Amino acid sequence: MKAIVVKPSSKGVEVRDVNEKEVQNFGRVKVRIIENGICGTDREIVQGKMTSARAPQGRDWLVLGHEALGVVEEPFGEFKVNDVVMPVNRRGCGKCNNCLMGRADHCETGEFVEAGISDMDGFMREYYYDDPKYLVKVPKGIEDIAILAQPLSDLEKSVNEIIKVQERVYWTCNDGTFSCRRALVIGSGPIGILVSMLLRSHSFQVIVANRREPTEIEDQIFQEIGAEYFNSAKGYTELKGRFDVIFNASTAPPTVIEDIIPFLNYNGVLGLFGFPPSGEMKLSFQEIQRLSLKGVAILGLANGQKPHFEEAMRHLSQWKITWPKTTNKLITRTVHVDEAPKVLSFKEENEIKVKIRW
Amino acid sequence: MKAIVVKPSSKGVEVRDVNEKEVQNFGRVKVRIIENGICGTDREIVQGKMTSARAPQGRDWLVLGHEALGVVEEPFGEFKVNDVVMPVNRRGCGKCNNCLMGRADHCETGEFVEAGISDMDGFMREYYYDDPKYLVKVPKGIEDIAILAQPLSDLEKSVNEIIKVQERVYWTCNDGTFSCRRALVIGSGPIGILVSMLLRSHSFQVIVANRREPTEIEDQIFQEIGAEYFNSAKGYTELKGRFDVIFNASTAPPTVIEDIIPFLNYNGVLGLFGFPPSGEMKLSFQEIQRLSLKGVAILGLANGQKPHFEEAMRHLSQWKITWPKTTNKLITRTVHVDEAPKVLSFKEENEIKVKIRW
Amino acid sequence: MKAIVVKPSSKGVEVRDVNEKEVQNFGRVKVRIIENGICGTDREIVQGKMTSARAPQGRDWLVLGHEALGVVEEPFGEFKVNDVVMPVNRRGCGKCNNCLMGRADHCETGEFVEAGISDMDGFMREYYYDDPKYLVKVPKGIEDIAILAQPLSDLEKSVNEIIKVQERVYWTCNDGTFSCRRALVIGSGPIGILVSMLLRSHSFQVIVANRREPTEIEDQIFQEIGAEYFNSAKGYTELKGRFDVIFNASTAPPTVIEDIIPFLNYNGVLGLFGFPPSGEMKLSFQEIQRLSLKGVAILGLANGQKPHFEEAMRHLSQWKITWPKTTNKLITRTVHVDEAPKVLSFKEENEIKVKIRW
Amino acid sequence: MKAIVVKPSSKGVEVRDVNEKEVQNFGRVKVRIIENGICGTDREIVQGKMTSARAPQGRDWLVLGHEALGVVEEPFGEFKVNDVVMPVNRRGCGKCNNCLMGRADHCETGEFVEAGISDMDGFMREYYYDDPKYLVKVPKGIEDIAILAQPLSDLEKSVNEIIKVQERVYWTCNDGTFSCRRALVIGSGPIGILVSMLLRSHSFQVIVANRREPTEIEDQIFQEIGAEYFNSAKGYTELKGRFDVIFNASTAPPTVIEDIIPFLNYNGVLGLFGFPPSGEMKLSFQEIQRLSLKGVAILGLANGQKPHFEEAMRHLSQWKITWPKTTNKLITRTVHVDEAPKVLSFKEENEIKVKIRW
Repeated sequence: MKAIVVKPSSKGVEVRDVNEKEVQNFGRVKVRIIENGICGTDREIVQGKMTSARAPQGRDWLVLGHEALGVVEEPFGEFKVNDVVMPVNRRGCGKCNNCLMGRADHCETGEFVEAGISDMDGFMREYYYDDPKYLVKVPKGIEDIAILAQPLSDLEKSVNEIIKVQERVYWTCNDGTFSCRRALVIGSGPIGILVSMLLRSHSFQVIVANRREPTEIEDQIFQEIGAEYFNSAKGYTELKGRFDVIFNASTAPPTVIEDIIPFLNYNGVLGLFGFPPSGEMKLSFQEIQRLSLKGVAILGLANGQKPHFEEAMRHLSQWKITWPKTTNKLITRTVHVDEAPKVLSFKEENEIKVKIRW
Repeated sequence: MKAIVVKPSSKGVEVRDVNEKEVQNFGRVKVRIIENGICGTDREIVQGKMTSARAPQGRDWLVLGHEALGVVEEPFGEFKVNDVVMPVNRRGCGKCNNCLMGRADHCETGEFVEAGISDMDGFMREYYYDDPKYLVKVPKGIEDIAILAQPLSDLEKSVNEIIKVQERVYWTCNDGTFSCRRALVIGSGPIGILVSMLLRSHSFQVIVANRREPTEIEDQIFQEIGAEYFNSAKGYTELKGRFDVIFNASTAPPTVIEDIIPFLNYNGVLGLFGFPPSGEMKLSFQEIQRLSLKGVAILGLANGQKPHFEEAMRHLSQWKITWPKTTNKLITRTVHVDEAPKVLSFKEENEIKVKIRW
Repeated sequence: MKAIVVKPSSKGVEVRDVNEKEVQNFGRVKVRIIENGICGTDREIVQGKMTSARAPQGRDWLVLGHEALGVVEEPFGEFKVNDVVMPVNRRGCGKCNNCLMGRADHCETGEFVEAGISDMDGFMREYYYDDPKYLVKVPKGIEDIAILAQPLSDLEKSVNEIIKVQERVYWTCNDGTFSCRRALVIGSGPIGILVSMLLRSHSFQVIVANRREPTEIEDQIFQEIGAEYFNSAKGYTELKGRFDVIFNASTAPPTVIEDIIPFLNYNGVLGLFGFPPSGEMKLSFQEIQRLSLKGVAILGLANGQKPHFEEAMRHLSQWKITWPKTTNKLITRTVHVDEAPKVLSFKEENEIKVKIRW
Repeated sequence: MKAIVVKPSSKGVEVRDVNEKEVQNFGRVKVRIIENGICGTDREIVQGKMTSARAPQGRDWLVLGHEALGVVEEPFGEFKVNDVVMPVNRRGCGKCNNCLMGRADHCETGEFVEAGISDMDGFMREYYYDDPKYLVKVPKGIEDIAILAQPLSDLEKSVNEIIKVQERVYWTCNDGTFSCRRALVIGSGPIGILVSMLLRSHSFQVIVANRREPTEIEDQIFQEIGAEYFNSAKGYTELKGRFDVIFNASTAPPTVIEDIIPFLNYNGVLGLFGFPPSGEMKLSFQEIQRLSLKGVAILGLANGQKPHFEEAMRHLSQWKITWPKTTNKLITRTVHVDEAPKVLSFKEENEIKVKIRW
């Protein structure tokens, strides 16, 4: 069958034939891939820049792809033929309590594997076999945007964890919701947009910041979802007030964190999600004193697991009804698998999510 | 203006003219009512059977109605003209910590008031004025079914509380979700249907029980949402296995609770939501011993507040996409306000939710 | 070696020689027993009345004893020779998540075993071998009362669970503690005394009720710990106000529960700990309605595990300092092992805790 | 009456007469001070170095002292004459939800006041009047060391918050306790010692690090409480393994944080408690990436409130029994009030806690 293959640490990607027996499978449910999504991680791997990318043991190549939709080809347990499913992309170590409880996002051994990224063949291939435990059902009616559930799952986990951690204080407002809480999202790429939608769905006030004027599409999106846009090219000082949540959804250098920390409110949370690609940040002794005095929490956030994929499916369904103009804009391009190498090597302007169609 | 008026403890209901000054208002946002929903509580009041119904101080009549949709008539704060809104129906005592934190569902003084039920004029009138704190925005796209958000809010609170209470044990399954947990819903009326939808949306396995064969509509609904139906006319012994959640969504006599308690699993939760109208139940010493040994929790559940109304709006949006056949069946009849007294006095066969249109 | 042996379901108990090879051991740490405690369960087994008592597979006799202190005889891991230890008495099923996480108190298969009670030889013998995982270190300085840590562990778990479950509401008072919360403890036996001490240590107001005048010892204890005593011979109506916690620490018939339920406050918790030996209770439809409206929680409570044994050791240490008169009164008699059959067959007046000395 | 008085921002301290009417009082319970504790904050104020120190409005001098024991002089509510009490030193803003719920440690307005530090007269005076809400009862039997409850209260809050935040993951070990979790405490001063005792009491493994060999007293203390000591003069690389908790209990420069962050385990928590007095730290992009990937939490920690003072009293009672050699060593000197200016100006070698006796 055809598969999209990379050699980790080397530049390049190709669509080539692989034998069912030489690629990894993970269970007994046959899944025919219908779509893959492309994200920044895929492109970093293709550029040979992602140092943590690793082929499965014993060979130097890897099937790419961690965002996928497929159809079940043979009935199995609760799955019927033609059910549309999405695979969970990180698989646990099988040893630590977090992984045993289905929460490989908090694996404690570091021995988890990630489809299409490290130690595990990905989903950019005609079909593969999986364990039902890792397959998430896609509701009819959102199949056009369901590919977004993979990146969204990471954000579901992140926002859930922020809310859970804030149980350390009285954080709900006098109407019992989060309507008085202000969130600042750094970055207006796909991650910035999705996390803004999620925070709005949890009733937060949301301001999205980027170091430029918003595009027309961004303008329309943030208007529909009720978020504000802020051009941070000249810093954040014109943003009035403090923030209860600051979520770094950008790949800006670490200095952005240095710049925004003073804007955290008492008991505020800084979510570290985006990966800075280079550089460093500084914190003075006064700033460290203030972190203590203000009772701030800084959280490292990564990965979503099955419960988060399921929540992502629910939010995408909800958003199709409440924010139809926005959900219509999120898939900016769909290409045939033979064009995949091209879109994997180059990001278009205004791209939000590109998907590959098999 | 016209209003639907009752005299608590007396039988009867009438549509009559009331003066804006003689009825209660609660704030500065003018809301024109467009729809009211009718539920069992309204009919009990109309029949003069609800002993806890009470008129506002100083008079013997009460504007009925605790389920309502309205449109904002004058801009106010975050509300724009023509925004569709639903009012929160229970208002806090203003004294206890739960009410001060926006959670009058757990009022500790008992001095809360309830629109159209006790000490507070209801929403079955042409217009009224409210405090924005108690108004919930209705997303475009679900206006046809949004009236269900009021009863659903009570269930959102109930299911949230069950899940919160179960943090006392390891209750998520090995995939991190509730997919291995079995819930039994007693009753297949509107409450039974809505709570089944909610439990399915939280990944529970759901069996709905009633003491008769399902109607055709019920059959279609439970099939779409993936719940099982069980005819309990001959008891529950043919139901295999135990239940992690048993939710009483019926108005069956207390003996139903006596009958189902033995079916609770270790660490199981029994949610007491429905109101038995008469009768009593017995528990033997052996059954009480088993409640201890099995670590069971029995929870009294009532009322939802603003966060639960907002979640209800989100679930209704989600369900329109994922279960369109079901959401299409939930409003079984819409009548003009002049017909309200008739529908308030008589429940049709197969009725799920009837609404009054102004 | 000598052991105290029973034949489950038959009346009787004897001190007899058993061979190390014919009794069960559970690990590699050799523990020489120095003391055993006696409780109502032991006496029920000796009377042949406890239907759930069961010998280990393949024989009809069981070594009795679930309350024990021992000394380590050979160094092992963190244990040094002469360390005083107490064994955890319930051991998990090895299958369900709760047991795998060290919380056999919430075992979901029911396949746990209990030392000296069901399927597992107890600790009334000269020595045995155990797994360090189940051994709890006893601090020097409380060895005289440490035998109480076993019954206290069950109550540590119970009170922790009550507090955890109440996270469903705003339950702490305006000073951040539980000082405004009122607890009613039914029963003034050893369990009633220990749970009262525990609730006082969590800052609750405590009233202990029994159907008679307090003994002189009880008077002194409740005065020192700051609890009130109430003679409930004529019912509870003279107790003013409602209770946020009602804890059944008695073996009174189920009607006591019927009688006290109306005294639960809004959001109150009823803890079912004590085992009624016979009889039944009734609940009317009105009372069931009130449970819902008042948001009450009823919790079945049993068993403590290692974290609770450790907390019990900490509380006993604390209490020796803060309530020395009370801790001095809790061990009412110490007998030699040869007298064990006698004290196992008969409970003295004013007994709180009797222990057997090897 | 006599009082110990400072002029914030100026160097110096004096014992002088003040009039009852010119100093602040806070309620109706008359408290005669018997002891004050001295800590680094007091000395910083005396040196004129603490920029956040502020006199009450309208004057330039402040009564010093936030650690105090007193006796009640007139009966009031639950307080009897001669009850020994300790005042809570931070008082809330009266506006935000956290303060209204008795948790001024998480005040959101920043308008709280602190006795003897900012905007509120302290407790180094012969007597004052307070609100019972802010008075904590001191158990007989720990009066000699109870002054430690004030600094300990800050640590009770800190450790509670760390444990609460970690509910985001499966963090208890397979025996249900924290026995498998490793904590690194930076600093072996009074704060380092107290937090190590606290972490040991929660069953953590504890290593205390300082950049020198331990003193003889430290050696004895860490041996009794079962903590390890590590000389970090040459860095932390010889410490094997990673840490689940790293608690900064030192006033080392920020580079210490830079150095220890790589030693955080997956899901680890870094508690920022100590105040670095100068300098800055750097974090590289790789380290920030690792914080995300490892799911780390960094918490700013400060201040304890009434529930934490009460827990501190309980732990001090427990520790007197379990670690008597250690509790005997913690008060290193007691001086008469007239000598206070001298001890406030100079810290002796080997000092742990100095107290002033009235």
